[in-house]
Amino acid sequence: MFLLEHLDQTVKKMKGQIANILTLMNLGLGALSIIFVLQNELRMGLLFITIAAVCDRLDGAAARRFQSTSEFGKQLDSLSDIVSFGVAPALLIHQAVLHEFGSVGAIFAIIFIICGAIRLARFNVMESHGFFVGLPITAAGCILTFSSLLVPFLEAYSFMFITMILALLMVSSFKVRKM
Amino acid sequence: MFLLEHLDQTVKKMKGQIANILTLMNLGLGALSIIFVLQNELRMGLLFITIAAVCDRLDGAAARRFQSTSEFGKQLDSLSDIVSFGVAPALLIHQAVLHEFGSVGAIFAIIFIICGAIRLARFNVMESHGFFVGLPITAAGCILTFSSLLVPFLEAYSFMFITMILALLMVSSFKVRKM
Repeated sequence: MFLLEHLDQTVKKMKGQIANILTLMNLGLGALSIIFVLQNELRMGLLFITIAAVCDRLDGAAARRFQSTSEFGKQLDSLSDIVSFGVAPALLIHQAVLHEFGSVGAIFAIIFIICGAIRLARFNVMESHGFFVGLPITAAGCILTFSSLLVPFLEAYSFMFITMILALLMVSSFKVRKM
Repeated sequence: MFLLEHLDQTVKKMKGQIANILTLMNLGLGALSIIFVLQNELRMGLLFITIAAVCDRLDGAAARRFQSTSEFGKQLDSLSDIVSFGVAPALLIHQAVLHEFGSVGAIFAIIFIICGAIRLARFNVMESHGFFVGLPITAAGCILTFSSLLVPFLEAYSFMFITMILALLMVSSFKVRKM
């Protein structure tokens, strides 16, 4: 009986931590994608940002499923998102194409990261009523990441335009219904 | 009179935003340092992480001076810190020396970022009583950044040790008095 109770407690604790473990996987994969971008392996960077997005989707689902939403988890989620969907995609698109524009290209990448941070900070202090205000950073980061596949087909300056539009959509005040 | 009142209101609003502007400067400088690291300009990376640390020091002072501490500012501060003192120093030391160890070096850099995020998330949900629990990420990030100056003088494996010790100190539970 004692063993069973102990096992039950352990399983409960583990369930409570599943969402946070998925969040840390999201962060680890985002950091790994940046290291691949650093070595100019952009396809690997794209792959790991994509898997990070899957983990991000799952952590929210796990937190709701196991009723383990916590303030700590929420904070960790934002910190992971700025790395995986702010810094990583901005560096990927910088290495893929924006670097051709020198300092101007770097400024566009930095603006994307700054707008992502403003979006996340605003989201954390706002009450949620079934909708997001502004484009979520996960969506903006994934679109920017996948836009790098279009580099051979579009003019280089189009990517400055795409980066800026996504950055502005994150800090804009339009509403998106939560899915 | 109307003009003076209007001016007074504007000055008050600006004062309220000074801390957030300094925080965004911290973030922008951290992102810039990462772009320099990406181009293997490690000395420039070190310089911009250092200026980011100065901005980080000033934003807290400005928020207290102008009594403009806000939940939004606190969130923005953490998001900036994970970029400037988590991701940027980890990538800098990776490019300076840890890359020699291949995947193992990458794992050490990623662990530093993950421990930094845990430290920041924990700090945001804990009550502050005049001390920090664990080494603050700003200190850990700056020490790791400056340790890169020792690369010509120390064995390469020492930097795996330094990275891991700093990561563990961030998530440890010892107390540091606030300055």
